[in-house]
Amino acid sequence: MNKYEINDYNKVKRGANRAVYEQATVREILDSTFLCHVAYVWEGRPIVIPTAYGREGECIYLHGAVANRMMKGLLSAEQASLTVTHLDGLVLARSAFHHSANYRSVALFGSVKKLEGNEAKSHALKVVMEQMLPGRWDESRLPSEKELNATLVLEITIDYASAKIRSGDPVDDDEDYDLGLWAGVLPIKQHYENAIPDPRLKFDLEVPMSVQQKLNEN
Amino acid sequence: MNKYEINDYNKVKRGANRAVYEQATVREILDSTFLCHVAYVWEGRPIVIPTAYGREGECIYLHGAVANRMMKGLLSAEQASLTVTHLDGLVLARSAFHHSANYRSVALFGSVKKLEGNEAKSHALKVVMEQMLPGRWDESRLPSEKELNATLVLEITIDYASAKIRSGDPVDDDEDYDLGLWAGVLPIKQHYENAIPDPRLKFDLEVPMSVQQKLNEN
Repeated sequence: MNKYEINDYNKVKRGANRAVYEQATVREILDSTFLCHVAYVWEGRPIVIPTAYGREGECIYLHGAVANRMMKGLLSAEQASLTVTHLDGLVLARSAFHHSANYRSVALFGSVKKLEGNEAKSHALKVVMEQMLPGRWDESRLPSEKELNATLVLEITIDYASAKIRSGDPVDDDEDYDLGLWAGVLPIKQHYENAIPDPRLKFDLEVPMSVQQKLNEN
Repeated sequence: MNKYEINDYNKVKRGANRAVYEQATVREILDSTFLCHVAYVWEGRPIVIPTAYGREGECIYLHGAVANRMMKGLLSAEQASLTVTHLDGLVLARSAFHHSANYRSVALFGSVKKLEGNEAKSHALKVVMEQMLPGRWDESRLPSEKELNATLVLEITIDYASAKIRSGDPVDDDEDYDLGLWAGVLPIKQHYENAIPDPRLKFDLEVPMSVQQKLNEN
């Protein structure tokens, strides 16, 4: 598959010229962070929750405590939609009306399945952790059977997805270019700062490879 | 009011020790960004959309084109819930299980009203723009009547809200402190980079005060 099927769920309605349905673009956006916002319906009202995820192929993994209301809500709905957003800058036009933001976002809709079995759950948790910080899984004390039993892991298979991207300069109405007002873009970046070792470290340990690599990417 | 009433909507279920219901804390988190994630229900499925907002008192303003499906969905539901999330760092524990993130988030639930009249709409749009970049409204060509007519502005009055905050060091199980594994926090920061003037600027204009102030806060 190169492109997601377009339907009423994933079709970008506003600013359709910013829509991208290519799988490669969707994956690139999904893979450059680990935080998504998921909605579930509780007593008729939608509630939005930020949570970590991991992507592998067309699957998104989420995890939480077994009593997690959001996870249970997704599971009983059998469907989930989630959104990932990178904010890249403020678009400062001459007119208030044409102010905007540069961003890359993905909205996806998927079918929800509860993972059973410690091997499948452990693999999914590895995908989530590696999405947060590649290499970290092998540096950690891996989950015990008791911890796995206390963890609910959901697999969301992507049914539809779309990306929306805005980049570049402001676009003003033709007559406003003569106004003598400044316009431009104020870029926003996210970066990592030097790691703060746990004050309770008992040994003289170097900052691990996963952290060093992340700082090198800054 | 100093504290939001706690009920089944805003009560923090997971990690209740991280919950904050103080209005001042909720406002501080809301006021340190301008991007929220809103959910609306469409044909029985919740959809999450990132959008700009502005806060004034206990009101949150959102805006969009008059045909915006999300805005129309919120309006017909007469209620909205939205979430604001600041990601502050990766919490790297010794155990995979105790990995976490440092963050500050707010979830709020409110009653939705469509703003009528150009004065009220223009004021709300100013609140949204000033939330994005204080001082920018007065540097811009203000909205025309035609532009205001093309814009749907919603006022969401906060009914319930809660904040959830995690900060500080990893917390591992007692026996894991002896493992000889590194643990710590990898802080994440957002910053603004130098403004990129629109290549179509016709005049020799300085970067405006709003942008200079934002860069000074970095």
